[in-house]
This record gives sequence, structure tokens and C-alpha cells, in this order.
Amino acid sequence: MTFVLFGATGDLAKRKIFPALYNLYLDQKLPQPISIIGLGRGTLTHNDFQEKVKESILTFSRRLEHDAGEMGDFLEAFRYNTLDVNNTEDYQKLLQLVKQREAELQIKENRMFYLSVAPKFFDIIALNIRDSGLGATNGWKRLMIEKPFGRDLQTARQLNKKLSSAFEEEEIFRIDHYLGKPMVQNLEALEFANPVLQSIWNREHIANVQITASETVGVETRAGYYDQAGAIRDMVQNHMLQMLMMTAMNLPKKINASEIRNEKRKVMEALRPVTKEDVQTQIVRGQYLSGEINGQKVPGYKDEPGVDPSSNTDTFVAARIWIDNPFWSGVPFYIRTGKRMKEKSTRIVIEFKNSLDLHYINDNQKVEPNLLIIEISPGENVSLQLNSKNPMNNGKIEPVRINFSCEDSSRNGLGVPEAYERLIYDFLIGNSTFFAHWKEVELSWEWVQPILDAFEENLLPLHEYSSGTYGPDAANTLLLENGFKWWLDEKVEENKEKVLQK
Amino acid sequence: MTFVLFGATGDLAKRKIFPALYNLYLDQKLPQPISIIGLGRGTLTHNDFQEKVKESILTFSRRLEHDAGEMGDFLEAFRYNTLDVNNTEDYQKLLQLVKQREAELQIKENRMFYLSVAPKFFDIIALNIRDSGLGATNGWKRLMIEKPFGRDLQTARQLNKKLSSAFEEEEIFRIDHYLGKPMVQNLEALEFANPVLQSIWNREHIANVQITASETVGVETRAGYYDQAGAIRDMVQNHMLQMLMMTAMNLPKKINASEIRNEKRKVMEALRPVTKEDVQTQIVRGQYLSGEINGQKVPGYKDEPGVDPSSNTDTFVAARIWIDNPFWSGVPFYIRTGKRMKEKSTRIVIEFKNSLDLHYINDNQKVEPNLLIIEISPGENVSLQLNSKNPMNNGKIEPVRINFSCEDSSRNGLGVPEAYERLIYDFLIGNSTFFAHWKEVELSWEWVQPILDAFEENLLPLHEYSSGTYGPDAANTLLLENGFKWWLDEKVEENKEKVLQK
Repeated sequence: MTFVLFGATGDLAKRKIFPALYNLYLDQKLPQPISIIGLGRGTLTHNDFQEKVKESILTFSRRLEHDAGEMGDFLEAFRYNTLDVNNTEDYQKLLQLVKQREAELQIKENRMFYLSVAPKFFDIIALNIRDSGLGATNGWKRLMIEKPFGRDLQTARQLNKKLSSAFEEEEIFRIDHYLGKPMVQNLEALEFANPVLQSIWNREHIANVQITASETVGVETRAGYYDQAGAIRDMVQNHMLQMLMMTAMNLPKKINASEIRNEKRKVMEALRPVTKEDVQTQIVRGQYLSGEINGQKVPGYKDEPGVDPSSNTDTFVAARIWIDNPFWSGVPFYIRTGKRMKEKSTRIVIEFKNSLDLHYINDNQKVEPNLLIIEISPGENVSLQLNSKNPMNNGKIEPVRINFSCEDSSRNGLGVPEAYERLIYDFLIGNSTFFAHWKEVELSWEWVQPILDAFEENLLPLHEYSSGTYGPDAANTLLLENGFKWWLDEKVEENKEKVLQK
Repeated sequence: MTFVLFGATGDLAKRKIFPALYNLYLDQKLPQPISIIGLGRGTLTHNDFQEKVKESILTFSRRLEHDAGEMGDFLEAFRYNTLDVNNTEDYQKLLQLVKQREAELQIKENRMFYLSVAPKFFDIIALNIRDSGLGATNGWKRLMIEKPFGRDLQTARQLNKKLSSAFEEEEIFRIDHYLGKPMVQNLEALEFANPVLQSIWNREHIANVQITASETVGVETRAGYYDQAGAIRDMVQNHMLQMLMMTAMNLPKKINASEIRNEKRKVMEALRPVTKEDVQTQIVRGQYLSGEINGQKVPGYKDEPGVDPSSNTDTFVAARIWIDNPFWSGVPFYIRTGKRMKEKSTRIVIEFKNSLDLHYINDNQKVEPNLLIIEISPGENVSLQLNSKNPMNNGKIEPVRINFSCEDSSRNGLGVPEAYERLIYDFLIGNSTFFAHWKEVELSWEWVQPILDAFEENLLPLHEYSSGTYGPDAANTLLLENGFKWWLDEKVEENKEKVLQK
């Protein structure tokens, strides 16, 4: 097959894509023979390009040792072609190179196009692939594109219309790299492979679900993009809603891409719509002030280079989401994402109902609810918080975490395959399970659109929060209104300390 | 109060009781002032006795550092009295000493009698306590006795009758030191403080329960006793059935001694009786041959010093037990205990039903059942075996253990209070939750009696097993007949290796 990479001189290619291809090669997961063609605006010889690929691997691969022979064989597959995305002649040159390599390597006309470029080029490239004849193969063709997919419902639909004129939906692989994370991929298995979890994974036993994705970094060098997008577009519409779908979906009858995507779509269809009027009560919008993170002073959002000093952009969003189906009726899902928060953590906390008070009337002992904690990053971890007697404390009943960490299995020094390795591999074998289907994307934009509108029209307050905190207080109130609180905000810290002390 | 210790020069006093009293003293759990009077056949000055107590503490206390002042204050409470258990005059001398100390220390006539002596003396001591006037106090009195309580149903009833003439049932504390183990005491809390476990702790979700208490040692120096008792009396009638009661009891409405003992009694009443005829099919009897343990050759049971070379004594017993109540109907409980087995381990494994095959029709993936594993000794540990994708193995679904270990909390160097510390403390404060009630003892003997008879009459084979194995094959067949197997026999080994490698 042929793997055509648009944006081959870009940052993502260097840091993620080349190392991923190399690791797949070493794990014998890269089909052979393969033709890999990199495209970029600049002029490069094939040799220069191969050197660049090699350098990126030596710098970014999860493997620390490299065999020169294997590396050489791997680089052999790479060719380079200069391409201006608007220049139709360049696509013709590309087509010739693709065909030439297909002939040389005697491979079928199976062509994969990976668009690792700015989103504004997605449509023009797709249309040129169609018009140039690159897409007219005797074999199959596939398109993989990075986020974001549109910047609102309308632009997403426009983009999809154009892509659809060049590729069938089954041929389009929309990357949401959160779907490539091992623990997100493990969510379905956790439930369907464990009768114990299955029997408590329902509204009878679950009090609420909390999905957090917090970062400690600010906008960094992406202010130009971020100030136009905000957390709602950057995180909520895609990653947060994808994690919500993966958590809330019913068990499909069979574990395959179409069944799983079907169940995910059903979750989105059951999301209670937020009207522009509801936004005030269901959504919290925040923006970070200056503050301190890990002992270091950091500026407020409005003072970041590249940010409009009067910007109303959301760097924090929390939401209360109801899924109006019989399975989840009455169980609130809370999502929360922000920059410049106290800790870097992506996690899902499932809080179970506490029906035990009866037994404690005499004891005056409060017991904490049981929690299932799925830590997605940094570090993969599933733990269950139970209550147990503490033998050091007169047998007082205290919460304890019982946990399993995937990280242990990486002790061989090779590390766990990264999200991009998994996703590119799935792309190679045509497994679309962990890619976003158009219906999911469209339904996500539909749900988010009234929030975008309300933000635009300033219908709700922009809560300021100091850098290095857990976001504005209003995000706590959102849970307090239902009698809940965000779990682990303090405990994670404590736990880390314990780990460090060991 | 006054604490009278019969058998104060014995091994148990030295190794367990004095260190326990000392640690309770340091933890400020020993009531003050207290009079502690040790009794033994030999002649000792108070001073000599105090020196012996001190020596035992320095040797056996879980605390490693000692303050001379505190030690001195603690030893002040100790006095010694020579006593021949059959000599009524000695009890009068004891009474005088008790009263003298009560006057000196101005303490109430609250008297505790701890019988750390051979079981044949239980009744004579109890009767002498009554007849001497020691038991005629203005305050309260309590009796704590070691196991075994009788050697069959009849002798147990006789013993109880005699004790009852001197003490009320509420005043009698029958030690089963397994009930003093932290994880056994944690069993009820695990269930009642965790909605998540509560909702799966029933016949709908549990396939079977396996209780193992295996030792690597042989009869050691106890052949005289053991050859008359066998595993059935030494382990099954007391410890194994107590663990079974603690596991199988329904949640009491309130967490107190009488409610818990009530629920435990109900379990025993619901045990399906084993008739002498059933014994062949429900019980496996074994005796160890020579073999190798930890690389060391060990002799067979019949060759042990002190053992009758034609002995039919059981050093291994396994049983399938049915609890005929609505809660456990259809869920087999398997118990297993033996000497000279491959590993030293006391644990309860709860195997959950596997209702998942449906989802794997396409995948050809077998998933292991979920297990709740409660390790009682050595080391306290609760873990849940779930299935998870292994990111290092193409996302194949594999079992993983998520576990919490109590041992972590002992890192302060003080260690977790030992069983004897807990039990003596409960004795001091009059909490009988973790002592065996007469009804439990009687019902246990009733259940065991037909097995004793069948063993006596040799109605079932005595399976030989090599030292260093998991017992006779017949114990595996017992589970195989229901489609099950003993869990963890190999895995525990593997796990230990992993822990060692870390």
C-alpha cells in the first residue's frame, strides 16, 4: 500500500507520526512492502527527507536503542514530493511518484492519505485528491484527518460535504487522539469483560459521572488559534464528548466498529439539548488570571502574547449533562476542562450511590461513597475506592484505593504504544472503531452550538480563576446543586506525595 | 480491674500475651490502674516474674524500641502466685492476693480470668474460680479461654455445662485467633461499607467461594496433640467454619456483637448436614508423605517423631459445603486446609459468575472470571481480579489484579496490632464480637461430628499427598465436579516472584 503524508515537514510528523510508523515497523505491524510519500511546501531530496525522518525517530521514539540496519531498511520506504496544496500540477507530480513507486514495489493501488495540515486545507486537498486522479484507484483508498473538524455546526457540515464528494464516510478516519489513549480504549473492555463492573454500571448504582481533563499549561504558542477557539471548541466538542460517549454507551451486541459507533451515536442523540437559555444554569465558563503553578508565577490569559487583551475566550468550561435514555435517566454527567489548572490530569470518576447509612446509625461513622477511578493520563490506571477498616486506627472504616496500573507493564523499557501508533495502525488495517464518525461529530456540534452562541452573545458570566487552582467556584456549585462534589482534587495530590515518599 | 492469667509461665504468655498487654499499655488501651496476676506451677518472686515479662517483651514485641521508664511503670502492675490447678488452697491464696491488690490500687472487683492452659484444665479452673469465691465479685467477671473447646460434640457440651455453672455465656470469651486477624475482622466491613461489593455479594453474582488455610510446616513438636486431633479438629471445626460464617453471614441490621453472632449462628443452622454416608462424596481426607518444601527434604507424617506409624490422622481436609438458605442456595463453599503444603496462605477467594460469552463469539477470546481475593495471612490484602486490555499485547483482554494492601500502613515500623492484642483489648472492654459464641461452637461440632465418625470408622479413603504440593488430587476433583477449580494456586507464586523482582 501507499501512505501519503501531507504536512510531512510539520511538527506533528516529526514528533508523533514518524516515530509511530517506525515503532509499527519494528513490531512488524507495518505492511510490507509499503511506499511512504511525504509532502511539504519546501524542496527536499529524498535523501534529505529520510535523514529528517531518522532524526525525528532518534529524538522522539519511545524506543531508546536502534539498530542501524533496521533503520536503513525502514527509511528505504520514504520518498519526498514538494507540494503546494493549491497547485493542481503538484498533485499530478505526486500521482506520478505514487504510480512509479507502486510499479517499483509491485504493490496494489491501495492509497492512504493522511492530512497532517492546518484544517483550512482539508477540503482543498480532498478535492484535489479526487480531481487529480489520485483517488481513482483500483484498490481501496482512505483519508485520515486531524482535528478540528469545523469551528461550528455550519462549517463542520460544509467541510463534511466537500470531503464526502471525494471520499465515502467509511473511507474517512477522523482523528480524536483521546480515542487512541489506552485507557479510553479500555473503557468498553472494562465494562464488557467484567461481570462485576457490568452489574453496577447502571443508574441503580451510579450516582454521577465526572470527566475531567485539566492542564497546567496556558495557551503556549497557540494563542492565535486558541483565542478564536476556546476550551469549548478545543476540548469539549471533541475530546470531552468522545470520552462521555465511551463512558455512557450501552454495551453493543458485538464488539466491532459499526456497533460501537452506533451505540456512541445513540448517546449523543439522547443528550438533553442545552438551549441558549439553559446555558447559564448548565454551563460554567471561565478564564484564567495570573497565579502560581509549581512555585512559578504565570501570567493571566489576557496578558499572554498573541491574546486580545479584551478577550472573552473561555479557557475553562464545566457542564452538567443529562442523558435522557432509560439507562442513564437521573444520573448527571459532569465534564470539566481547563488550562492553567492545579494539576495535569485526564480522568473519569464514577461515584456510586451510598445506600448504607442505615448501618451506621449507632456508629456515627460517615463512610465515603465507592468510586471507580479511571486515570487516562498522565499514566494509565484503574482503581476502585472501597471502604475498609484501618487496623492502625482502631478499625475505623476509611476509604482505601485498590488499583491496577498499566504502567507496570512498560517496565521492559519499550513503553506502551502511543496513541498515534495505535491510531495509525488502525488506519493501516482499516479499523475505524476509535475514530470519530461524522454523525458523532455532527451531533456534538449540534449539542455545542447553543453554547457557542451563548458565549458569543455573552449570555453568561465569564468567571475568572487564578492559575494553579481547580477553576472557578461556579464549577463546584454546579455539583453542589445536586448534592455532589468533584472527587480527588485534593486526594490526587496526597496520593502523589505518598508515591513519592516510597 | 484485675487480669488473672493462668499459664503465665507458658509459651503463649511469653510470645503473645505479655507483648500484647505491653503494646496495649503503650497505646493507652490498658485500663489504669490495673492489677495483673500471673499464675504458674513453679515458684517465682514477683520480681523474677516481672523480669520474665520484660524479657518476653524485648524478644517478641512488635515495637522495636523501648523506654525504660515506661517499661518499669508497666511491669509494676504484675504479681505472681504459684498455683496448682487442683489445689483449692492455692485459689484461696490467689483470692487474697487479688483482694490485696484491689485494696492497694483502689480498684473495683472487676475480674478477668484468662485460661492460657491445656484444655483439660478448663473445667477444673472454672469450677475452682466459682468455689473459691474468686468469682463472687461486686463488679463484673469475665473468662477468656483458648481452643480447643472439646474434642467432639459430646465433650464440648460437657465442658460448656461446667463452664456455665461458673460463668454466664456473656461472661465467656472463647478465643478463635482467626477472628482476631485484621482481614477476618474486615470481612463484614468490606461488605457493609461498600455498596459496590454489597450489590454483587449474593447468589446471583457469586459462582462459588473458596476458603484455604494451608501451612508448609508439619506437626512440629505437637505430634502428641495433633495425632489425636487431625486437621478436622485442629482447623476445620473452629477456624475454617468461623471464616465461613464471617464470609457467608447476612448483613446484620446493626453492627454489634449480638447481631453479628446471631447472623453467624443462622449460617451454621443453614449448613446442609453431612451424613456419615455423604462424607465420602463431600469430604476429602489426606495425609502427607515425604517431599520437598523450599528445596528441603521433609519426612512423611507417619515418620514424624511422636506420630503412630500406622496413624490414619488427617493432615489435610477439603470439603464442599452447601448453605441451604435463600441467600446462598446453589453456591458451593469449598474449604481446604492442610499441613506441609506448597505455600503458607490463608485466603478467601470469591469467584463471580461469568455471563459474558455472548460478546466473544466473534473474538474467540476466553475471559477469566472476576475474583475477589481476600488474603488473610501472611500479609493482609484485598484484591479484585478484573479483565483489562493489555496495551503491550495488541489490546488482548487479560486478567489484572487491582489490590489494596493493609501492610502499607505498617510502614511506620510499629506494625499492625496483632490478633492477640485485638482480642485481649476486646476482652478488656467486654466486646465479644470476635469471640466464638457457644451456639457457634456447638453447631460446628454438630456439623463436624458425622465427619469425625466417618474418619474414625474409616468410611472414606485417606488420600496421600506429597509434601510441598497442594494436597491430594481428590481435592481438585471436588471442584471439578461442579465445573470449578481452586484459584491462585499457581498465581500466588507468580505474584510473589513479581513482588520480589521489584
